[in-house]
Amino acid sequence: MTTVGILGGGQLARMMALAGAPLGLRFLVLDAAEDPCAAQCAPLLRADYRDAGGLAEFAGRVDVATFDFENVPADSAQWLAAKVPVFPDPRALAVAQDRLAEKTLFRDLGIPVPDFAAVADRAGLDAAIAAVGTPSILKTRRLGYDGKGQFRLKSPADAGAAWDALGAQAASVGLILEAFVPFQREVSVVAVRGRDGELRAWPLTENWHDHGILAASLAPAVVGAALQETALAHARRIAEALDYVGVFALELFLCDGVLVANEMAPRVHNSGHWTIEGAVTSQFHNHLRAVLGLPLGDTAAIGRSCMLNWIGELPDAAPVLTEAGGYWHDYGKSAREGRKVGHATLRADDDASLATMLERVGRALGREAQVAPVIQRLTEV
Amino acid sequence: MTTVGILGGGQLARMMALAGAPLGLRFLVLDAAEDPCAAQCAPLLRADYRDAGGLAEFAGRVDVATFDFENVPADSAQWLAAKVPVFPDPRALAVAQDRLAEKTLFRDLGIPVPDFAAVADRAGLDAAIAAVGTPSILKTRRLGYDGKGQFRLKSPADAGAAWDALGAQAASVGLILEAFVPFQREVSVVAVRGRDGELRAWPLTENWHDHGILAASLAPAVVGAALQETALAHARRIAEALDYVGVFALELFLCDGVLVANEMAPRVHNSGHWTIEGAVTSQFHNHLRAVLGLPLGDTAAIGRSCMLNWIGELPDAAPVLTEAGGYWHDYGKSAREGRKVGHATLRADDDASLATMLERVGRALGREAQVAPVIQRLTEV
Repeated sequence: MTTVGILGGGQLARMMALAGAPLGLRFLVLDAAEDPCAAQCAPLLRADYRDAGGLAEFAGRVDVATFDFENVPADSAQWLAAKVPVFPDPRALAVAQDRLAEKTLFRDLGIPVPDFAAVADRAGLDAAIAAVGTPSILKTRRLGYDGKGQFRLKSPADAGAAWDALGAQAASVGLILEAFVPFQREVSVVAVRGRDGELRAWPLTENWHDHGILAASLAPAVVGAALQETALAHARRIAEALDYVGVFALELFLCDGVLVANEMAPRVHNSGHWTIEGAVTSQFHNHLRAVLGLPLGDTAAIGRSCMLNWIGELPDAAPVLTEAGGYWHDYGKSAREGRKVGHATLRADDDASLATMLERVGRALGREAQVAPVIQRLTEV
Repeated sequence: MTTVGILGGGQLARMMALAGAPLGLRFLVLDAAEDPCAAQCAPLLRADYRDAGGLAEFAGRVDVATFDFENVPADSAQWLAAKVPVFPDPRALAVAQDRLAEKTLFRDLGIPVPDFAAVADRAGLDAAIAAVGTPSILKTRRLGYDGKGQFRLKSPADAGAAWDALGAQAASVGLILEAFVPFQREVSVVAVRGRDGELRAWPLTENWHDHGILAASLAPAVVGAALQETALAHARRIAEALDYVGVFALELFLCDGVLVANEMAPRVHNSGHWTIEGAVTSQFHNHLRAVLGLPLGDTAAIGRSCMLNWIGELPDAAPVLTEAGGYWHDYGKSAREGRKVGHATLRADDDASLATMLERVGRALGREAQVAPVIQRLTEV
């Protein structure tokens, strides 16, 4: 009997525990929250990631550990890795936690990235603006997600406002200025690498964001084979450089035919949720197989799928449940503005069926705007 | 937030809890065992089905109740139904618990059944043999499953041995003598009926047993449309007569072109496990949808699937995990002779692929005999 420890008890840990039960796995979730949603599906050890006693107990009760949350302190992850196997390796986590280290790695690997510069202080911001130009985005180097910790500069005159917004965090989490990429499309490649180095990737996914939070994904993305291969090559290069084990996502901008790397997430990813029903093997299954050294499963898509994120509160489930190929995922969370509380996946064998399904569901839920760009992509060919 | 109570904490409750989590459901399992396998995936209330205090606490903590186990005492189920909604209705459960009531219902509905007669005492057994003939099978009316509580009579001379084996149970659970059906094939229809009376059925499944325990299922069964329709009509008639809500299975013998009803199981069923990956909506999802009054999901099959039961102990998972379309289900139980400890489902888009997959897996696991009849069925066309 193997117990998998998961640092973080959100919906990713929850879906991982649900996927892992058929493999006969037991889980233990480490989270400081009182009732994290993964605790509805797996035992909880309630402790902060920095609590030495909690970490020691966690290490004693699990056979292997992984993450639902990439911002676990690197010190804690490294301490843990001295006690039990931890995948992905905390060194990979450390790179992915830091936008500067991450972008530097991408650039060193020959992967296109936006121009960027580290920002240490107010004068450094001016220097960075001079080097990178505007429009650009000032971001925290660490702890940012879903568009948080970002300030967009339209011109050098916005430097003061940007500093007012984020300057206080320069000393604690660091800052980076990145050139704004006038992209046409956002895509991600979700891939898994086994302990033995085997790499498999799901088909490229196209993503649409709303206020920095993923709103919809379409997979396989409607792109040519060349883009698909380029994205996969980028992902492979990064995974091998980090000796990565497990699932990760690489977010890319498609800008005038070039794929520009935005960031990687060293964990299962929201843009891979469609794989639960839309692929032969889901990202959650394959992450666990990788972590445990089991054979990786087939990542082929079954037809085409659209994932719709539910942010803040859940809409009515019935319009999704009445669709053949409509799947509902309620994370068991209470409603809160900006919070990811669930998602739906709509799967069909052909694009016309998927588009009409999206129309029906969008209309029934009053979510026409959320489904519109996906329908457009499916029907513009 | 809805909590579904499940009477019984075996693998059916476990798979139900795993299927229900994405609907945002919480579960509470009632079981007297110390560590029933469903308790790895859902909270456990440890109590006997006849424990009034335990039942009262259970009733107070759940919004609706259902079963993983059909032999819950009818009194307990009825007591519970006075406190919370219980699906299926305990009256339907009572019929399905009793082979005599069940066969009588089937016959009254015009569904072919083997000849049968109740047996109250030793003299009654001789009278039943005179009426039903031999070969025939003496069975307990209640509490039998997986071939337990059965004695086969080849001739009237076996009456004494049959009585020695089962006579002591005549007073407690009752006995029934059934004519042996010289069937060519065993099939089952797994169906679901909603609170509103809507009925949906998965395609017919063919089953192979070993020592009374299901060894393999093939779905959709390789049968003509007429048989499929007849089986569905039988299932519909039974469900409507019982005003049944939830999933049930009807086991049928195919004997010289006629479908003869063997028994029904008033719950999700082992012969429906293939629906987890092999159908658009699984039996576990649809059972919960029915119990909660949600719209039923599509029961169409995706390609063809073979389910292989693991009895006693689990074989090596790797040969299944390396197959695209190979899915593993470890119930988290310890090994024990005759115990259902897991299953695998192999799914393919065409029969030739499924047959070769079964050959590879059977050979790798030394389970050639288990897969042989399925391969024969797939290739004999």
